[in-house]
Amino acid sequence: MAHRDFRVQTRGQGLYEVTRELAAWVAEVAPSEALLTLFIRHTSASLLIQENADPDVQTDLKGFFHRLVPPTTDPSQSWMVHTYEGPDDMPAHVKAALLPVSLQIPVLDGRMALGTWQGVYLFEHRDNPHSRHITAMLR
Amino acid sequence: MAHRDFRVQTRGQGLYEVTRELAAWVAEVAPSEALLTLFIRHTSASLLIQENADPDVQTDLKGFFHRLVPPTTDPSQSWMVHTYEGPDDMPAHVKAALLPVSLQIPVLDGRMALGTWQGVYLFEHRDNPHSRHITAMLR
Amino acid sequence: MAHRDFRVQTRGQGLYEVTRELAAWVAEVAPSEALLTLFIRHTSASLLIQENADPDVQTDLKGFFHRLVPPTTDPSQSWMVHTYEGPDDMPAHVKAALLPVSLQIPVLDGRMALGTWQGVYLFEHRDNPHSRHITAMLR
Repeated sequence: MAHRDFRVQTRGQGLYEVTRELAAWVAEVAPSEALLTLFIRHTSASLLIQENADPDVQTDLKGFFHRLVPPTTDPSQSWMVHTYEGPDDMPAHVKAALLPVSLQIPVLDGRMALGTWQGVYLFEHRDNPHSRHITAMLR
Repeated sequence: MAHRDFRVQTRGQGLYEVTRELAAWVAEVAPSEALLTLFIRHTSASLLIQENADPDVQTDLKGFFHRLVPPTTDPSQSWMVHTYEGPDDMPAHVKAALLPVSLQIPVLDGRMALGTWQGVYLFEHRDNPHSRHITAMLR
Repeated sequence: MAHRDFRVQTRGQGLYEVTRELAAWVAEVAPSEALLTLFIRHTSASLLIQENADPDVQTDLKGFFHRLVPPTTDPSQSWMVHTYEGPDDMPAHVKAALLPVSLQIPVLDGRMALGTWQGVYLFEHRDNPHSRHITAMLR
């Protein structure tokens, strides 16, 4: 059993891959068989497992969620009340509700048993840079 | 290892915070390091970790999901087939697909390692009052 | 502790129930109390726990996600960039972001502690048949 805090420095909305850092830690401390749990300690950023082959996928994911939950400066969002931290604030909370706050990844043969095209990402929903924390736990 | 059933009595759509009840149970039975799993035994209510500072966030979350998946009385939903339990029935299933049925929270130093602004909620998607069950498991 | 790979052969978009296969494996190998983790090794298919009573619920879930994220042949999706694997490709990644990649189900009395109406599904997001892999882990 082990746990560790991973820090991710973000520079605006989008996906930030953390697969390599996680893999290195798992290689160092995991038994051959275990369960890796990731938990993000924020309500305006998410975890996500997605394709890591074509960067266009990440661009389109960001584009989809921006269109589904536009900033509160968009007339379609005029009903939103919680706006005092800026036009990206409440949409960030909505995206954090729609996307994972916790993830589990099986560890087999001492490595994360991800599919061929799967990478692990932090999805930042705020415009300004943030220092984000992910708690990783191996059991 | 421990498990417990938490019951939440709801009074219509919206978020019901359960952080305090969970924290009290964890303080009583958890070892210093553990993994807390929450599982909701329903298909028309969800679990959610969200901001617990400004109640407007909860109002806006409810508003967003109501607009994304309106009742079947709304003309935009006329294609929905499963309507015999009322206009809030099928939308409740859709919201339950979009939001978490299970959550994992690391326990460190004997307490849930939540972020500063994170609270744990049951999100009720039906209009009528319901008695909801959450299974909590510590390992 | 045990783990197993479940293979699901899909025939186009929609929900494929796996509850019975999972229940049989849990009955065979699980201790009386455990935690079952499911993980899908793909970025264009999802896991989902949903109502297994009325098949119309599954039809409407498929219908909702098809309307929320239409194929890239739909004019509303003309902004999407990642389209070279077909009009169902990028929408499949978006649906895989919106729906669970991992699920946890408590095992109590040697059985999955699902609610009365809950079934476990693989949700296929691609049009063509695929052979999908779910890793199940008991701890």
